[in-house]
Amino acid sequence: MEKKLEKLKETIATLADIGGVQAILGWDQQTYMPPGAAEMRGQQTATLGRLAHEIGTSPELGKLLDELRPYAASLDPDSDDARLIKFAIRDYERATRVPADFVVEQAQVVTLANQAWAEARGKSDFSIFRPHLEKIMELTHRFVGFFPPADHPYDILLDAFEPEMKTADVKAIFDALRPQQVELIKAIAAQPQVDDSFLHQPFDEQKQWDFGVEVITKFGYDWQRGRQDKSAHPFTGGPGVNDVRITTRVTPDFLNSMLFGTMHEAGHAMYEQGVAQTLVRTNLIGGASLAVHESQSRMWENLVGRSYPFWQHFYPALQEKFPQLAGVPLDTFYKGINKVQPSLIRVEADEATYNLHIMLRLEIEMALIEDKVAVKDLPEVWNAKINEYLGVTPPNDSQGVLQDIHWSWGLFGYFSTYALGNLISAQLWEKINQDIPDLDEQIRQGKFDALLGWLRANIHVHGRKFMPQELVQRVVGSKIDSAPYMRYLRKKYGEIYSL
Amino acid sequence: MEKKLEKLKETIATLADIGGVQAILGWDQQTYMPPGAAEMRGQQTATLGRLAHEIGTSPELGKLLDELRPYAASLDPDSDDARLIKFAIRDYERATRVPADFVVEQAQVVTLANQAWAEARGKSDFSIFRPHLEKIMELTHRFVGFFPPADHPYDILLDAFEPEMKTADVKAIFDALRPQQVELIKAIAAQPQVDDSFLHQPFDEQKQWDFGVEVITKFGYDWQRGRQDKSAHPFTGGPGVNDVRITTRVTPDFLNSMLFGTMHEAGHAMYEQGVAQTLVRTNLIGGASLAVHESQSRMWENLVGRSYPFWQHFYPALQEKFPQLAGVPLDTFYKGINKVQPSLIRVEADEATYNLHIMLRLEIEMALIEDKVAVKDLPEVWNAKINEYLGVTPPNDSQGVLQDIHWSWGLFGYFSTYALGNLISAQLWEKINQDIPDLDEQIRQGKFDALLGWLRANIHVHGRKFMPQELVQRVVGSKIDSAPYMRYLRKKYGEIYSL
Repeated sequence: MEKKLEKLKETIATLADIGGVQAILGWDQQTYMPPGAAEMRGQQTATLGRLAHEIGTSPELGKLLDELRPYAASLDPDSDDARLIKFAIRDYERATRVPADFVVEQAQVVTLANQAWAEARGKSDFSIFRPHLEKIMELTHRFVGFFPPADHPYDILLDAFEPEMKTADVKAIFDALRPQQVELIKAIAAQPQVDDSFLHQPFDEQKQWDFGVEVITKFGYDWQRGRQDKSAHPFTGGPGVNDVRITTRVTPDFLNSMLFGTMHEAGHAMYEQGVAQTLVRTNLIGGASLAVHESQSRMWENLVGRSYPFWQHFYPALQEKFPQLAGVPLDTFYKGINKVQPSLIRVEADEATYNLHIMLRLEIEMALIEDKVAVKDLPEVWNAKINEYLGVTPPNDSQGVLQDIHWSWGLFGYFSTYALGNLISAQLWEKINQDIPDLDEQIRQGKFDALLGWLRANIHVHGRKFMPQELVQRVVGSKIDSAPYMRYLRKKYGEIYSL
Repeated sequence: MEKKLEKLKETIATLADIGGVQAILGWDQQTYMPPGAAEMRGQQTATLGRLAHEIGTSPELGKLLDELRPYAASLDPDSDDARLIKFAIRDYERATRVPADFVVEQAQVVTLANQAWAEARGKSDFSIFRPHLEKIMELTHRFVGFFPPADHPYDILLDAFEPEMKTADVKAIFDALRPQQVELIKAIAAQPQVDDSFLHQPFDEQKQWDFGVEVITKFGYDWQRGRQDKSAHPFTGGPGVNDVRITTRVTPDFLNSMLFGTMHEAGHAMYEQGVAQTLVRTNLIGGASLAVHESQSRMWENLVGRSYPFWQHFYPALQEKFPQLAGVPLDTFYKGINKVQPSLIRVEADEATYNLHIMLRLEIEMALIEDKVAVKDLPEVWNAKINEYLGVTPPNDSQGVLQDIHWSWGLFGYFSTYALGNLISAQLWEKINQDIPDLDEQIRQGKFDALLGWLRANIHVHGRKFMPQELVQRVVGSKIDSAPYMRYLRKKYGEIYSL
């Protein structure tokens, strides 16, 4: 049986290698690839995808997994081998349920849909995107139909990003959270607004870059196993563990994009870098889920990077780099980077309003899957909902229903993970502060090794071994829960806005 | 039969895609890959190599090729399809002759040998490299043994780089050339030396980079389908045609590395970019051979870039960028960049001495294959030969037998292609000057479109369709021949050194 396991591991290593190569190609595509190479690149990635699909759905692999099933049951269920087999079975079953010609059709549809979305957003004309989105919804329904019925059809979509997570659980979490966030935002809106005008002025681009590098180097981002480049949309890429690459965006007249974008991506990247070396070339590298991944990026960006102790340490260095901030006191700066302002665009939203952007997306996605809303009515539905939650009205669809790229890629079930990540980050933060009582003081001294060490030992090292709810339960003693996040928001913004 | 051809083309397209991906990984490895990723990268490329080998040596492919053989014979032998089948058979036969475990063993040996070579060169201690090179020679003999006997065992090695080229032909070409080059160098040495001290002074690195970019943009390097980065050793990489990437090296106190290195690599790259779009995803992209490739790089570097008309156009712009050259007249500059000086290091050699560096390597490689010289005696043999040809004596092995990386990679049969490239470049140049009588005047005006157009139509567009000797014969009406190169050297250096 051990020989069979070795054979399985060889197959998985091959798939991991191909996946790693795909990750390099993806990174290259968004950083350095010459524009004329796009079509060729599409063919290269399609070929690698086809080879991986052939290997990952081969009958021999299926037979091997069938044979290993009883063996896996005899192992410690938390052992690497048991988890590796579990995920191999999971991945095999998901891959074999979806016919190859469906995958090809979907790839073609989203390529066109993505182009149409870009055009539609540019012209703020939903009608350009509408037929493509209708086609994507049709494909999404067919996709769901390949799987055995679930409690809710949306479960099947969610499961791709949050393994074993249920729609009902996400909905329950969001339903509890929404009224509290809405209430908090209203209370903030009733107070005088803070000043953040000093963030909107020219900042030397090279100095911005250098400052970001300084910060994430102190965080513990490992440059031996990573690098930073520029891209239009910041992302974390690469094969993982020993090759994890981040990008950032430097805006010449606004400090925040580089500052918090760099910390955000470094948070993702340090997670990937912290996965156990023993898991390299297995199916267990990467994070437990998108939500757990986001808990790491948001922790470094917000709980660390937008905290008062952080800026007690870093603000003098920032002021030295940018003398235009010399006259801005620390308190003013701190409040400015934490300004709460209901707005139209998710990716520009602050900590207090962000989750509401997600909730409306989840509701719309669920309604689409349940056939309770038609694609043609989306702009109207969108505008009504964002007005209800945030009190703002999009002047056009570019700033409304067309703002995100996700649907054009056929990514349904993805958005919730952003909000869940926020919640998990606060749950972890409470636990970390119990385990490291002087954490604030350490941050005030610019020391992050205990924090990173804790995250490595409790989260990173496990890679993808545990399901997200299972991992959170193991670490903090309860499942995903919004209470810590609300406590965090109330305390922080209560102080900032004198509530 | 057309269906079978389609099936062959699909297989070849898959192999081309994998090869293209390998090329991207190779580029990344030498430009941006984090150092800690090296081991992971080794596994990824090994996996892709194994997949390509499995596809490229599969019995189904062999059967398909057997079936297509008579069909190929019925086609116009110069047609793309006939050539595609011919090369598919050639590649299949070469790949299936070499056992898979030999390939694995060789990969392991050269990995260690490469490390040992780097250490040996660093310490200038041949004994560190010697056992590895002995192992490589043993492998090389075994490799030759996998093939049917050739006129000379070295033919089998040469054929990997110069398809269908014979050792006897190369030797005859070099034997005719050597005494003439030696004689020319002696004549030059008897004359007063030219001054090139002005090339050795500080030159702003960004300005150097910018000037190189200006030059190759005028040449016609297509930035839509390429890019330039920095690397320790300049190279041309990428999958080809629509994705061809070059690197350069900028030395802060010497102008030549960036200047001629950039033009050299652009020459390679424009060849790759000029291959017909219809050959993308076939086995016919890339160049006809390494020698033909080198004819393109050396043409742009030397016949264009070290010519008087070129600098009549570009020297004012260079002087404007670098005011330190204001007092250096054009004639002095031209002579300086063409200084002839027998030296120890091949990659730093001038046009008049370069080929002699190659000839001594060919003789040593042939003697090794013929078992006429032992690895342990190489330093002595090397030093004697370079003294005989160039009148210089290496003070240590780093500047002698250890200077090149090629043998540590197991690359035997490679070096000749550099010299053959020089010869071909001069043959093409004579023909081009017949076809474009005012070429000098065009260059003097900074116009290169007619030259590039000629190269595209006569050389580039064909990709790998023709064998090198066949291609040269088609274009200039004779096989590879040293007479045009000697005419070129005598005329140019006769003027510079008043012979």
